[in-house]
Amino acid sequence: MTKVIPLQKIKKVLQKIDPIKEIEEGFIAYSNGKVVVPPVGELQFEKPHGEVHIKYGYIKNDDYFVIKIASGYYENIKLGLPNYSGLMLLFSQKTGELISILLDEGHLTNIRTAAAGAVVAKYFAPKKVKRIGIYGAGVQGKMQLEYLKPLVDCQDVIVWGLNAKELELYKKEMEPFGFNIETTENSEDVTSTSNLIVTCTPSTSPLIYIDQIQKGIHITAMGSDTPEKQELDSAILKKADLVIVDSISQSLARGECYQAMSAGMITKENLVELGHAIQQKKSQRTSDDQITIADLTGVAVQDIQITKAVWNALSVEK
Amino acid sequence: MTKVIPLQKIKKVLQKIDPIKEIEEGFIAYSNGKVVVPPVGELQFEKPHGEVHIKYGYIKNDDYFVIKIASGYYENIKLGLPNYSGLMLLFSQKTGELISILLDEGHLTNIRTAAAGAVVAKYFAPKKVKRIGIYGAGVQGKMQLEYLKPLVDCQDVIVWGLNAKELELYKKEMEPFGFNIETTENSEDVTSTSNLIVTCTPSTSPLIYIDQIQKGIHITAMGSDTPEKQELDSAILKKADLVIVDSISQSLARGECYQAMSAGMITKENLVELGHAIQQKKSQRTSDDQITIADLTGVAVQDIQITKAVWNALSVEK
Repeated sequence: MTKVIPLQKIKKVLQKIDPIKEIEEGFIAYSNGKVVVPPVGELQFEKPHGEVHIKYGYIKNDDYFVIKIASGYYENIKLGLPNYSGLMLLFSQKTGELISILLDEGHLTNIRTAAAGAVVAKYFAPKKVKRIGIYGAGVQGKMQLEYLKPLVDCQDVIVWGLNAKELELYKKEMEPFGFNIETTENSEDVTSTSNLIVTCTPSTSPLIYIDQIQKGIHITAMGSDTPEKQELDSAILKKADLVIVDSISQSLARGECYQAMSAGMITKENLVELGHAIQQKKSQRTSDDQITIADLTGVAVQDIQITKAVWNALSVEK
Repeated sequence: MTKVIPLQKIKKVLQKIDPIKEIEEGFIAYSNGKVVVPPVGELQFEKPHGEVHIKYGYIKNDDYFVIKIASGYYENIKLGLPNYSGLMLLFSQKTGELISILLDEGHLTNIRTAAAGAVVAKYFAPKKVKRIGIYGAGVQGKMQLEYLKPLVDCQDVIVWGLNAKELELYKKEMEPFGFNIETTENSEDVTSTSNLIVTCTPSTSPLIYIDQIQKGIHITAMGSDTPEKQELDSAILKKADLVIVDSISQSLARGECYQAMSAGMITKENLVELGHAIQQKKSQRTSDDQITIADLTGVAVQDIQITKAVWNALSVEK
């Protein structure tokens, strides 16, 4: 009998899981060719502006396969509804049976995304982080900061956003975690003071330009996961010493690297896959002067890993 | 709050629905360009042999979008499990919210598939059906016959299969519907006596060859829905007066037409889409001598229509 797990129960069992470890292992398996991930399924809606992603796949010879559905509807907030939603489906790889439906409402997507940011910081953040810069004061902007906390020895944060009320809320919610938070609507304020930056907006035009880039900076570009979205001036990717992606094959069709390749700024040969970089020191940050960029479009292996971890933790409870 | 609907409740409410009407309307909307259906998502497993299809899409300016997951695991029967399973997910097109999960275990896929066979028979069956021939004694073989009953004035049936026990069971189950059923393991027995044939097997090599084809025959090829599966000798499609497909774009990549095009037997220009044929008499059967073939790979619009119909019928009940 299929088990339908509500969000509340998922949130409770998440306390027993280390998502950063799960996601890191997932990226390694993925880059080592042990994961089957077909191209992302997609629906786009214009009015109201919404999009749906279907990400799915499996680890070879594992017990499960996972199908994840996640939606972003950017006008929902006007209706008092969350902009993001979704669910995870866990099936038996041996029989096709539906084992469990995790009604996570997009929460597990948020977590596996934030955990990927933390994995990147672990290998690419400058040794001495002066200030953490976050673009986007939404759910993901908050979670990225929360997940950086155990990995980065820095409490000073500046958050960029376009909505003063949302920025105020960000400050109020995140300061209790122990951060000193400044907010701004001016992108220069972030880049002139921060050397570890995470962008997590659905922007379709650059928020950071090439002349804002200083030596030693690291940027994790998290927001762009379609061919249309873009947060970084493509010239930044050209200038970078290292361009890391979660999935080379996905980067050919979506995200910052897709934009930069279309603009002729970089080629596929410039890209290093995260799961490979984790396994070889020379592909990680090796000096305080390097400019490093990670472009994350979100890979089904993250959904597989977080779903399996939740299911296994629930199974232990029984 | 998402409503999770179990199979039993779905089966009950199905009595209030006319799937043939729903599916016919769906095909018309699809061929008229009113439906968005991205390419089928797919997972393939070798050991044990299984496959999973994700079919999804929406009718433009409708309230909903639908994602359907259906699996076929051909060795499940050895484990005492059904070979086919699946579920339907109904979402709001306006907000992305998950409205309902229909835990139909593949039943709605079976119904929308059988209903498509009935729609085809309505427009392409010979005026005088001598005998109905069915290839495949599984669930779909039974449902195709059940759905032909109200449309075809013929009680004589011959069923081809490879498993004597399964054939016996078929006879036992389907005779109470008012059919006279003969069974055979020899394909010639079917084609020499039947002029309305439905093939519904997962075969990967032809079950019917060109020299078995007589004037006036109609074949609905239902089984092949991947690039690998094939039930008809491709020369049959070349010889046919009409080749109907449920979706031209899908036929370029899967099913009998894909096989026949790969073999150079037909081209895209030979294909007529079912939703167009329904609307124009000249694309339907016009004489008793014509050889007509319908190749159905299964289109998401069928899933959308059946899911919406079930949901609407459930909503009326409340």
